[in-house]
Amino acid sequence: MQLIKTIGWDGDEVVMLDQRLLPSDEVYLKYRTYKDVGEAIRTMVVRGAPAIGVAAAMGAALGARDIDVDDFDEFYKDLCKVCDYLFKTRPTAVNLPWAIDRMKETAIKNKEFAISEIKRILKNESIKILNEDLEANETLGRLGAGLLKDGDVVLTHCNAGALATSGYGTALGVIYAAVDSGKKIKVFADETRPRLQGARLTAWELAKHNVDVTLITDNMAGSLMMAGRINACIVGADRIAANGDTANKIGTYGVAVLAKYHNIPFYVAAPWSTVDVKIKDGVKIPIEERDHDEVTMIGNERIAPKGIKIINPAFDVTPASLITAIITEKGIFKQPFQF
Amino acid sequence: MQLIKTIGWDGDEVVMLDQRLLPSDEVYLKYRTYKDVGEAIRTMVVRGAPAIGVAAAMGAALGARDIDVDDFDEFYKDLCKVCDYLFKTRPTAVNLPWAIDRMKETAIKNKEFAISEIKRILKNESIKILNEDLEANETLGRLGAGLLKDGDVVLTHCNAGALATSGYGTALGVIYAAVDSGKKIKVFADETRPRLQGARLTAWELAKHNVDVTLITDNMAGSLMMAGRINACIVGADRIAANGDTANKIGTYGVAVLAKYHNIPFYVAAPWSTVDVKIKDGVKIPIEERDHDEVTMIGNERIAPKGIKIINPAFDVTPASLITAIITEKGIFKQPFQF
Repeated sequence: MQLIKTIGWDGDEVVMLDQRLLPSDEVYLKYRTYKDVGEAIRTMVVRGAPAIGVAAAMGAALGARDIDVDDFDEFYKDLCKVCDYLFKTRPTAVNLPWAIDRMKETAIKNKEFAISEIKRILKNESIKILNEDLEANETLGRLGAGLLKDGDVVLTHCNAGALATSGYGTALGVIYAAVDSGKKIKVFADETRPRLQGARLTAWELAKHNVDVTLITDNMAGSLMMAGRINACIVGADRIAANGDTANKIGTYGVAVLAKYHNIPFYVAAPWSTVDVKIKDGVKIPIEERDHDEVTMIGNERIAPKGIKIINPAFDVTPASLITAIITEKGIFKQPFQF
Repeated sequence: MQLIKTIGWDGDEVVMLDQRLLPSDEVYLKYRTYKDVGEAIRTMVVRGAPAIGVAAAMGAALGARDIDVDDFDEFYKDLCKVCDYLFKTRPTAVNLPWAIDRMKETAIKNKEFAISEIKRILKNESIKILNEDLEANETLGRLGAGLLKDGDVVLTHCNAGALATSGYGTALGVIYAAVDSGKKIKVFADETRPRLQGARLTAWELAKHNVDVTLITDNMAGSLMMAGRINACIVGADRIAANGDTANKIGTYGVAVLAKYHNIPFYVAAPWSTVDVKIKDGVKIPIEERDHDEVTMIGNERIAPKGIKIINPAFDVTPASLITAIITEKGIFKQPFQF
């Protein structure tokens, strides 16, 4: 069940919900070229590891459509350029290169067909990626829901919901599935500075689906845990290394340490496309450094002195040792993680 | 040395730097009545435990001045009403009741004088409280500086600087003193949601005094610690219980847990007026719940859906067990804390 239409095709155009405008405005933007899709990924019109994988696949299909050659080798060379452009938009989430590679492989597998047919196949492949993600979310949500008890209060960080995926969610998918199965679940949502995905997106989509959600600033999580008001933490992932180390939105590591200190289970929920077995451990995961204005400006409000030094890593890495379980559509993995 | 004039007398008026407008504008506001001073404390024109102690004392002196009676008992009854009003402005910082009690005791001690003379004495007492705070800051700064090594990188939370005190600082006083003694100290300042005192005030005043400061969102602290980039944490305090449990700005507890986990010393710096030996432990410290708009609005920017559930505790309590040392002008206290 697609709870929110985050991204999809409308005829020959890719349509995305502009997540930068939520919760004030619900605006859908249409894209006709792969470059514009790349820009939408970079500027976070669409965000969330699984969703940017889908966006990149659709961008690749748009790029393929505009390649005006008859020869497959030439077509493939140009497709690689398109894919390379999309690859460079954001570095941390592995779902993006995963989706791009799959599009390239799909072209090669179908090289015997006419170019026009390959273009159609590529568009269909991007839809397949979207549908598979939705299905993976639903499966992992159902599996993960078994980890939550009736009456649990769950802390989540950033947005790993319908908006971050094809339209159901990973961390929030687990919560939706638990609620749908009749369990009473309350959620505390970290606002998640600097981009405030928790405040703008998670609070919005949970409230929209009648889940009992309370918004907090990131730095309130500790005292709630100390007060015994949190029973479990669930977050998404941007990349999971072969040993279970997990890159996710900045601040996830702090939540994991707090959870460990308070003996609260800390769960990561992600589709299999987020697992990167080629990377041995978290040290190797590239961490995106984003624009400093994200920290110093909120909308038109400047909240820090001009010229002040800033760092703005968009992600951090939580070591496997702090993770109680990793929930995927292929099953729930526990320590020691072996994928 | 008063680094920034946070609060003081200008003739018969109390002058305060409007901290709500920093860092954009440096505006001084003048107050003629105790009610207006109370409102300034409540709305955080002035904030920081030692500074609101000074503000309350000055407010009491203003209130006393406007009491139009000749009999001491009547005068004292009215003074108690003034003090009661000021007492109710903010509940957590003990410096506020401490300063108010001192003003009341000063009136009683001088009851033999003419009312006009008592009014003068009360105004002078408020100046004495300001000067003593400044002196305490300098002394504890000097003592605390000995805990920092040349080259240390220090994390601080909220603003416990010149702006939070009579004009030098507690946590930042330690840093100023270390820098003045020739040590190279770098500072990471947590922005400190929701009121952003770290971004608006700490980053501003440290940069103004040429201290090497980098602003981060609260949720970046953990990954900096994991990367070995923080050598010490120093924060201020709003109230320290007899056993060393310390109430301070929301998020302090999370920093303390992270510091413990990474074996980084965690220091609390505060004047003696912040120690409340009448309260056995942190459980008894009243925690202020502030307006929910502080979380959902930043200036004119709404960052969360309308009607969303919010909690907004302004402080949390860090148990003594997580505190390496408490730095006061009477000396550096280590575990087990015995004041």
